Amino acid sequence: SQWKIWSEADFTNTWKTRNKDAHKGTFGTGLLLAGSDEMPGSALLAGLASMKIGIGKLIIGTTPFVASIIASRLPEATYWFNGLNKLPNGDWPVGVKGIAIGPGLTDTLLVEEAIKKIWETNIPVILDAGALQKREYPKRNAPTIITPHPGEFSRITGLTTAEIQKNRLKLASDYAQEHQVIVVLKGANTVIAFPDGSGVINITGNPALAKGGSGDTLAGMILALLCMGENPKIAVANAVYLHGLCADELVKTRNENTIVASELSNILGELIYTLTHNIS
Amino acid sequence: SQWKIWSEADFTNTWKTRNKDAHKGTFGTGLLLAGSDEMPGSALLAGLASMKIGIGKLIIGTTPFVASIIASRLPEATYWFNGLNKLPNGDWPVGVKGIAIGPGLTDTLLVEEAIKKIWETNIPVILDAGALQKREYPKRNAPTIITPHPGEFSRITGLTTAEIQKNRLKLASDYAQEHQVIVVLKGANTVIAFPDGSGVINITGNPALAKGGSGDTLAGMILALLCMGENPKIAVANAVYLHGLCADELVKTRNENTIVASELSNILGELIYTLTHNIS
Amino acid sequence: SQWKIWSEADFTNTWKTRNKDAHKGTFGTGLLLAGSDEMPGSALLAGLASMKIGIGKLIIGTTPFVASIIASRLPEATYWFNGLNKLPNGDWPVGVKGIAIGPGLTDTLLVEEAIKKIWETNIPVILDAGALQKREYPKRNAPTIITPHPGEFSRITGLTTAEIQKNRLKLASDYAQEHQVIVVLKGANTVIAFPDGSGVINITGNPALAKGGSGDTLAGMILALLCMGENPKIAVANAVYLHGLCADELVKTRNENTIVASELSNILGELIYTLTHNIS
Amino acid sequence: SQWKIWSEADFTNTWKTRNKDAHKGTFGTGLLLAGSDEMPGSALLAGLASMKIGIGKLIIGTTPFVASIIASRLPEATYWFNGLNKLPNGDWPVGVKGIAIGPGLTDTLLVEEAIKKIWETNIPVILDAGALQKREYPKRNAPTIITPHPGEFSRITGLTTAEIQKNRLKLASDYAQEHQVIVVLKGANTVIAFPDGSGVINITGNPALAKGGSGDTLAGMILALLCMGENPKIAVANAVYLHGLCADELVKTRNENTIVASELSNILGELIYTLTHNIS
Ligand SMILES: Nc1ncnc2c1ncn2[C@@H]1O[C@H](COP(=O)(O)O)[C@@H](O)[C@H]1O
Ligand SMILES: Nc1ncnc2c1ncn2[C@@H]1O[C@H](COP(=O)(O)O)[C@@H](O)[C@H]1O
Ligand SMILES: Nc1ncnc2c1ncn2[C@@H]1O[C@H](COP(=O)(O)O)[C@@H](O)[C@H]1O
Ligand SMILES: Nc1ncnc2c1ncn2[C@@H]1O[C@H](COP(=O)(O)O)[C@@H](O)[C@H]1O
Ligand SMILES: [Mg+2]
Ligand SMILES: [Mg+2]
Ligand SMILES: [Mg+2]
Ligand SMILES: [Mg+2]
Repeated sequence: SQWKIWSEADFTNTWKTRNKDAHKGTFGTGLLLAGSDEMPGSALLAGLASMKIGIGKLIIGTTPFVASIIASRLPEATYWFNGLNKLPNGDWPVGVKGIAIGPGLTDTLLVEEAIKKIWETNIPVILDAGALQKREYPKRNAPTIITPHPGEFSRITGLTTAEIQKNRLKLASDYAQEHQVIVVLKGANTVIAFPDGSGVINITGNPALAKGGSGDTLAGMILALLCMGENPKIAVANAVYLHGLCADELVKTRNENTIVASELSNILGELIYTLTHNIS
Repeated sequence: SQWKIWSEADFTNTWKTRNKDAHKGTFGTGLLLAGSDEMPGSALLAGLASMKIGIGKLIIGTTPFVASIIASRLPEATYWFNGLNKLPNGDWPVGVKGIAIGPGLTDTLLVEEAIKKIWETNIPVILDAGALQKREYPKRNAPTIITPHPGEFSRITGLTTAEIQKNRLKLASDYAQEHQVIVVLKGANTVIAFPDGSGVINITGNPALAKGGSGDTLAGMILALLCMGENPKIAVANAVYLHGLCADELVKTRNENTIVASELSNILGELIYTLTHNIS
Repeated sequence: SQWKIWSEADFTNTWKTRNKDAHKGTFGTGLLLAGSDEMPGSALLAGLASMKIGIGKLIIGTTPFVASIIASRLPEATYWFNGLNKLPNGDWPVGVKGIAIGPGLTDTLLVEEAIKKIWETNIPVILDAGALQKREYPKRNAPTIITPHPGEFSRITGLTTAEIQKNRLKLASDYAQEHQVIVVLKGANTVIAFPDGSGVINITGNPALAKGGSGDTLAGMILALLCMGENPKIAVANAVYLHGLCADELVKTRNENTIVASELSNILGELIYTLTHNIS
Repeated sequence: SQWKIWSEADFTNTWKTRNKDAHKGTFGTGLLLAGSDEMPGSALLAGLASMKIGIGKLIIGTTPFVASIIASRLPEATYWFNGLNKLPNGDWPVGVKGIAIGPGLTDTLLVEEAIKKIWETNIPVILDAGALQKREYPKRNAPTIITPHPGEFSRITGLTTAEIQKNRLKLASDYAQEHQVIVVLKGANTVIAFPDGSGVINITGNPALAKGGSGDTLAGMILALLCMGENPKIAVANAVYLHGLCADELVKTRNENTIVASELSNILGELIYTLTHNIS
């Protein structure tokens, strides 16, 4: 069938070693448009995930208030203050290789204006959370990735979450093919549907992830792998796979109720080391 | 008798496993009204405890100043700025399944206005610290929980702390039955008295908890278990039990004087794992 | 002689176990007047040390700017904004059992005004850093403790640091007896001189402590032990002893150049546990 | 030849033990001019590195906004608000033994004004990032160190990065000799060229360092070793050596993609301990 379960081997076969002579430019610059004053943490969670999975440079477009919260825990990133408000004027940081927009954003009008500007570029983009609305997607040469949970997919499609949950694969794939976007339909066994009709089913993850902030972490991971130059299909599949695996690792020694999203990206280092060194 | 000592078996028999298909909505949204500019930490301590014991989503109603302090350590929560001031106007975040009010609050008038609005709802509520005043409690279909230490119980009842400490069980139970609230009378061997005359005695905990911030952590734990859908009696008993057990665990390797409240919720993960896997 | 080297046995013989029924009031409320906008960290270091050595409650009198920096790492404390400016008006938090003033303070005039008000009380006080000036000390029923390093003792006494270092014991003791204060003359082998002519020599500590922030940590430790009700002589000796021992422990596994002051109080828990359980 | 590979023996032979009677003054006061509101993290990374490698005192000249971000993670430092704007007026903190300028600075005019004032002193200076421009260097009695990556060396020299990478040793050395500065040409196998024509090649480090923030950490390490009184050649060589070695150590247990710059200085303590105790 056109569906494939993403396995450990799929991950290890596609995970890249950094080139000896690489520099930070080699791993791309990501632009994260996320976080508002009442929802500042989402930008921190996505940013931590991006930096800790391997991106070269990260620019976070957010408010000064949010930046003041993030920066002490993520000093490796830089900021583009109120980037969302500047985007419509064509103001734009140089060298951006991938964009994620949406976590912690609630000003729908501003987000729409920003997305219109993004459509004019050929930069890969991830639409998450506040950027997930019923919409048309223009034809572009760069991938567009949407990461709805069932509630957000309901908002986008007009279907009920019950309908969606009964028919996750088909509905995600139909949407992906019709709109020519990559659909990451989240929840237990996340479904990744590609524009060509193929798709990936993820089997990592557990209900420790059923808590505020998990999705922000995933968005950051996808952004990073895209910026690092990975093929979009593999980038998305590996990010979803690792995101779930972090949770699976944490529940080996800790009760599932007690995991918080900021802990996920912390263990990527040892997790990937183990996977790529054939230790189990 | 109507008094029961809450045991490890009581905890393990009632502690729930998260459903495979659960999502964050499954574990409820809590509203924490806590923290003022000169007492910001209480909101952080309560919030950390809520998130780390398993709540689905947490909204913290507090000042922007306090939010800026909390959010870097608790990026998984979101904020409702100056919620206390907005509540009287009927402004209200959607989907709230439980409320805790009081930690770090000193503006008694504002707190009273907020509580009046809360009485109009059928949302379970925990009154702690600044929300503990001599008062009447309206008849509601949702539980009201009060968490006084002996000094606060003195303020509420007009009795001296010496009188209270001599007769903890009877006085807590009388108050619970008369006012139809759940009384958590804190201190060594916390007493939990229910409106029906029954009650629970807690035997976990130690004087490492005799330090600023311990009570805030407990309030957050109770809020979370309530929001996660647990029966109120069990929610309160398990929160009090775990709160004390965290301290008991910490003093196994560290001097009792040196524990600080923010460390308590950090070890919930391994603690509950051990209890529910029959490891000792 | 009147000089005594403070030994491990002196520490273990005097270190108190917390009473089973204790509550936070049992361990006192400390007032820490420290930190200014350009020197915010000193208040955090002193505050962390106070809380992590066992104080019941800590109120930090500092600016809102400094509080916003401290509170995320020390949520167990509360704040008294701009306390230094309020003190001269007789505004005063209730129930304070000990005061430390000076770390990170540079406004000499304001500090003097505050100290004048403090002299009117019978609250034990520690004068450190910015509060160390050439001055007279009024007769009070509560101990006054000064904690100069040789440079500060030079400022107070008019002697050169070379003269001081050549004659640490005698000069400290002369000052203590003349002014009826406890003198903690810091540096390798800290000398503690009491008003009655007796004194203690400390032999813990090492040059890992020769770094900005070490002294702030010590001030916080002394404040806590005083508030916890310890006899002033023992409180000061044990604080100095433990402060040095933390550094001695850290250099057992880490290079001495790499220790920073905020790490000292982190290991108090295991350190004291080991000492009081006869493990070595 | 005039080129030497810096070895573990070179490090251990030159690394100093702290004198028993040392105090913080013994290890110098550094001035770090770094960080702007949209690039606050660079100042934190450089500052952490300085403090954690052994400097006595650190003053960070930066904005209040940046200070509020740094200080909770680096309470051992103090601040000189907007130092960059004050420098041209001859306002200047006392006792500074070394200066690093550039990380996170973008206001080129202000930076130039500051550098002009620095030239008037005989204080060792490190020019990094925003302070790296095409310029002449005045004759001074104190060392000037520049730390360009190939992109920055291209900006300074007018050569392309391709030309630079083909001929790293010669180009770095020519520049060092012509301008009488120490050139740290970064990237895999960092080249350190001295004004006298000699040079050092570094063989520690790996592409885990190819990520935003790595260079800031290095600048802080060099600043500290200079302030601690080390000979400039050795200070630079040891800083570059240790900086790379931290990364080499981290990738022994963690995947190279997942390391972030703030982790580097964290492991200096154990790393140097091992090297200087002949443990491997
Ligand atoms: N029960 C579950 N099992 C596995 N993954 C889950 C579960 N619940 C939530 N998740 C994941 O957690 C994240 C939640 O995203 P969000 O709802 O945007 O915060 C997604 O990646 C989901 O796939
Ligand atoms: N001596 C003690 N033994 C056991 N628990 C204590 C003791 N002192 C305080 N606690 C607990 O610590 C918390 C203090 O709450 P609060 O006074 O509001 O900060 C309550 O949960 C108390 O039951
Ligand atoms: N070489 C050293 N040996 C032992 N203790 C030291 C040494 N240098 C500094 N200290 C201690 O570190 C603290 C420095 O205080 P301050 O100078 O106020 O930061 C004091 O407690 C000193 O006794
Ligand atoms: N591939 C690499 N191998 C070794 N060191 C590297 C590599 N990439 C970057 N670095 C180091 O990381 C730092 C990057 O500095 P910057 O570009 O200013 O952030 C410098 O110290 C470089 O030498
Ligand atoms: Mg989401
Ligand atoms: Mg309380
Ligand atoms: Mg000092
Ligand atoms: Mg750089």
